Amino acid sequence: MANKKITSRDVDFAKWYTDVVSASRLASYSNVKGCIILEPYGYEIWEKIQNIMNDMLKKSGHKNVAMPMLIPENLMKKEGELINGFAPEVAWVTEGGSEKLDERLCIRPTSETLFSDYYATLVKSYRDLPVKYNQWCTVVRWEKETRPFLRSREFWWQEGHTIHETKEEAEAETKFIMDEVYKKLFYDYFAIPAITGYKTEKEKFAGADYTLTIEALMYNGVSLQSGTSHYFGQRFSKAYDIKFLNRENKWEYAYQTSWGVSSRMIGALIMVHSDDDGLVLPPKIAPLQVAIIPIGDNKEEVMELANIYKEELEKNSITVMIDDSDRSPGFKFAEAEVKGIPVRIEIGSRDLENNQVTLVRRDTKEKIMINKESDISKEVKDLMDKIQTNLLEKATARRDSMTYTAKNLEEVKKIMDTAPGFIKADWCGDIKCEEKMKEIKGLKSRCILKDEKLITSKCVVCGKPAKDVVVWGIQY
Amino acid sequence: MANKKITSRDVDFAKWYTDVVSASRLASYSNVKGCIILEPYGYEIWEKIQNIMNDMLKKSGHKNVAMPMLIPENLMKKEGELINGFAPEVAWVTEGGSEKLDERLCIRPTSETLFSDYYATLVKSYRDLPVKYNQWCTVVRWEKETRPFLRSREFWWQEGHTIHETKEEAEAETKFIMDEVYKKLFYDYFAIPAITGYKTEKEKFAGADYTLTIEALMYNGVSLQSGTSHYFGQRFSKAYDIKFLNRENKWEYAYQTSWGVSSRMIGALIMVHSDDDGLVLPPKIAPLQVAIIPIGDNKEEVMELANIYKEELEKNSITVMIDDSDRSPGFKFAEAEVKGIPVRIEIGSRDLENNQVTLVRRDTKEKIMINKESDISKEVKDLMDKIQTNLLEKATARRDSMTYTAKNLEEVKKIMDTAPGFIKADWCGDIKCEEKMKEIKGLKSRCILKDEKLITSKCVVCGKPAKDVVVWGIQY
Repeated sequence: MANKKITSRDVDFAKWYTDVVSASRLASYSNVKGCIILEPYGYEIWEKIQNIMNDMLKKSGHKNVAMPMLIPENLMKKEGELINGFAPEVAWVTEGGSEKLDERLCIRPTSETLFSDYYATLVKSYRDLPVKYNQWCTVVRWEKETRPFLRSREFWWQEGHTIHETKEEAEAETKFIMDEVYKKLFYDYFAIPAITGYKTEKEKFAGADYTLTIEALMYNGVSLQSGTSHYFGQRFSKAYDIKFLNRENKWEYAYQTSWGVSSRMIGALIMVHSDDDGLVLPPKIAPLQVAIIPIGDNKEEVMELANIYKEELEKNSITVMIDDSDRSPGFKFAEAEVKGIPVRIEIGSRDLENNQVTLVRRDTKEKIMINKESDISKEVKDLMDKIQTNLLEKATARRDSMTYTAKNLEEVKKIMDTAPGFIKADWCGDIKCEEKMKEIKGLKSRCILKDEKLITSKCVVCGKPAKDVVVWGIQY
Repeated sequence: MANKKITSRDVDFAKWYTDVVSASRLASYSNVKGCIILEPYGYEIWEKIQNIMNDMLKKSGHKNVAMPMLIPENLMKKEGELINGFAPEVAWVTEGGSEKLDERLCIRPTSETLFSDYYATLVKSYRDLPVKYNQWCTVVRWEKETRPFLRSREFWWQEGHTIHETKEEAEAETKFIMDEVYKKLFYDYFAIPAITGYKTEKEKFAGADYTLTIEALMYNGVSLQSGTSHYFGQRFSKAYDIKFLNRENKWEYAYQTSWGVSSRMIGALIMVHSDDDGLVLPPKIAPLQVAIIPIGDNKEEVMELANIYKEELEKNSITVMIDDSDRSPGFKFAEAEVKGIPVRIEIGSRDLENNQVTLVRRDTKEKIMINKESDISKEVKDLMDKIQTNLLEKATARRDSMTYTAKNLEEVKKIMDTAPGFIKADWCGDIKCEEKMKEIKGLKSRCILKDEKLITSKCVVCGKPAKDVVVWGIQY
C-alpha cells in the first residue's frame, strides 16, 4: 500500500522525487525564484551532517571560520580561471544603502578568493603552516532550473580551504578529505557506496591542478557528483601572494587545497534509499530513529509502556517520538514511513495481553514480535545496525548490477538503450573523445580510476592506446 | 604587567576594544569593505552560543529552518513600514548570471517578509498553530562604519518568527523569549546583568506593535542594545494573508512575533568583562576553560602530570589545552590571558617537589596552590563557579554604581558631564521630549520600565505629568 501522495518511482522518477521531498516535508519551493526553503525536518538532517563532519574535521585539526558573503569584482578577478569558470553564474550586488556602488560585489559562488586574500595576511613563516580552515555557509549560483537539493540558486555547503608548506602535504590533505572524511561519510553514515577518482581536465574545478570527486549512483541509474576535493598547487598562492619563509629562509608560495560537500547529499540519500512510501533514512543519519505508536483502547497500559520505552531509549541516545495524536493507526504508520523513521514500535492492547510488542523495520517492512520485557534499547540498536548494513548492501548490489564494462561505442550505445548506470571504458585522454561520448544521451566522464587495470587498452571512442579506465554516466 | 599589544582601556577605550579583538584573534578586518572575518576563536564562541540557545529553543518547542537570503523587491514592499525602515540600508542584487534582472532582489536585512510569505502557505486551521521557527544566518545592512561585532555590513544572528492562534499566546511568546531565553543567556552564561523593558514608539522595530529590548551597560558607561523581541499583532499576517479557520470556523489572521540576537553579543562580552591583559571570558561561554602550562626542566614528570590532568578534566567535560610549545612561561601566561581562558594550571618541577601545583584565576589573577593529588576536576569546577559568580557580581556592582536617577535636565547634564551610564528619569511619553534628551550628548531612551515606580511623576524634560520611568543612555 503505497503512499497516495507519492507517484511510483518506477512510473515517473522525477515526480516521485519531488513528491517524496514535499510529502516528508524536507523542503519546499519559495516565492524567491530558484531558491528553496529548508523545512525543519530537512534542516535537522543538515544539522546532523554538520555534527558528524565537524567531529571528523575538528579531530583532524581543522577549524571553522566565517568569511564575508560578498566578494569585490577585482578580488574575484585576480585568479583568471576561477572567474572565467564562475562569471556566467554569479549574482552581482550593484546598489547598497540607496547608492550605486563604485565596484560590483558578487555573492560568493565559492570562497577561494576570500580565503587566499586572508591567508596572505596570516602567514609569514613555515611555522605558521599548515592552516586548515572550513566554513559552513550558503553560496549562490545563478542556475536556470530548480530541483530541491539537486539544483537551486542558493544552496548549503561546507568549503574547506587549506595551505601547506609542501606539495606532498597539500596533496595528502586533498586525499585525506576524500578518503577519510567524504568517503567515510557516504559509506558509514549514508550507507551509499559512492565511487571516487580523478576528474578529467574538462570536468575538473576551474583553477585546480586536479580534482578528486565522489560520485554516487541513484536508483534510476543517474550519477550524482556528491563532493569534490581540489589540489591547487601554487596557482592561487601566486595570484594572491600567499608566501612564507621556508626552512631555508627563502620565500616560497604555499601549496593549497579546497574541498566541499553540499545539501545535494540529501538528494542522494533520497534517490538511493527511498521508496514509494516515502523516505528511507539510514539510522545513523535519521533525526528521529524510533516512532512509538500506541494502538487500541487500553490506553493507560499502552501509554505507560510507551513512556517507559521512550525514556529507556533516550537514555541510550536513541532519538524517539510517541505519536499519541487522535489519528488512526494506519495514518500514523504512513506518517512514520513517509518520514523514513527507521524503526516503528507498535504497542497494542491485544498484543500486550500476550506480553508482546511489534517492531517494524522501515527498510524491509518486516515485523518482529518481541517480548514486552525485552531490553528495548538492545533490540532497537541491533535492529538499527541491521538496517544500516542492509541499506549499504542493497545499494552496493544495485550499484554493481548497474555498473557495466564497454569495449567500444556500440557496446556503450547498447547499454544506454537498455538501462543507464556507471559504464567503465578505457580512454585515450583526448578531450575530443570525451565530447564524442556526450553525443550518446549526454554521457559524461564521472571519474578516472587511476589504479584500475585497463580493459582493452584501447580508447572506447577512437581505438588509440588508452591511458586510463574512466567511469562514464549521465549526471544530475 | 599589561599586554603590550593592548592599549589601556582607561586611556583609549575604542582602541582598547579593537586591540583586544585582534590580540585574542576573535575576528579580523577583511578586504571586503565593511565586512569582518570571524576567526576560529571568535567562531567557537559563536558556536557555543548557538549550542546553548538551540538547547533552550528546542526544549521550548522551536525548530530551526533556513530561508533564502534574497528577497524580491515586491515581496519586501508588501508591508510598508518595514521597507521604509530598511530601504536606506539594504544591498540590492540587480544582475544574475550575466543578465540584468527584471526585479531587484535585496539581500535579507531581516526575514519577516519571507517567513510571512511562507507561513501563509503553511497554515489553514487553528490546529496548525502555533508555528515557532528560528533560523541562524547572516544578514546585510549597509552600515557606514565598521567595528568588529558592533557594526558591520554583514553580521551573524538568529531570527525567530512565530505565529499564534491568539493575541495572548503571541504576547506570551514575545515575553518568554525575552525573559526565559535572552535574559537567562545574559545572566546565567554571559554573567552580564542586562536590563530589559519596552522600546519607545520612536525606537521600536518598524512594523511592530511593541518591542522588548535587552540592554547591557559597558565598562565605559555606554549602552549596547543586545537583543529584541517584537510583538506584531496582525500587521504582517494581514499584509501577507496568514489566516486560519479558528475554533468558531471563521477566518482569522494569525498573531505574530519575531526576535533576534546577534554576534554583537560577543562585543558585549568583551566590553563588560575584559581588561588590559585581553579577554576575560565567563567559564560557561569560554571555548577553552583551562590552559595547562608546564614549566621548568624536569619535563617528563611535569608532562606526565599535565597529561593526567588533561584526561581527567576532559572526562568531566571541561575543555582544556596543554601549551607545550618551546616558548617561555611568561609568553604562555600572556597568551592564555589574552585569550581569556578562565583557569590556568602551572605545573613546575620545583613545585612538584613540594607536591604542589598552582591554579591561577583569569578574572582576579589570584594564585591558588593545591596539592598535586587533589581532585583536579573538583578544584577546577569550584574555581570556575567562583569566577562565573564573581564576574556577574562585579558587573552588577559596576552597573549599579553607574545607574543614576535624574529629576530634571540639569541633573541629567551634570551626570553626563561626570560619567555616563544608565540614567533613570520620568517621561511624559512625548517624542519631542525624547528628541530634546538627544541634545545632551546624544542620549537616547534605552527602555521603558513599565513596573517601576515614578520618581517625581513629572517628565524630566517638560515637567508635565509623567507616564513611565525610562532608562536613558548613550548607545553603540
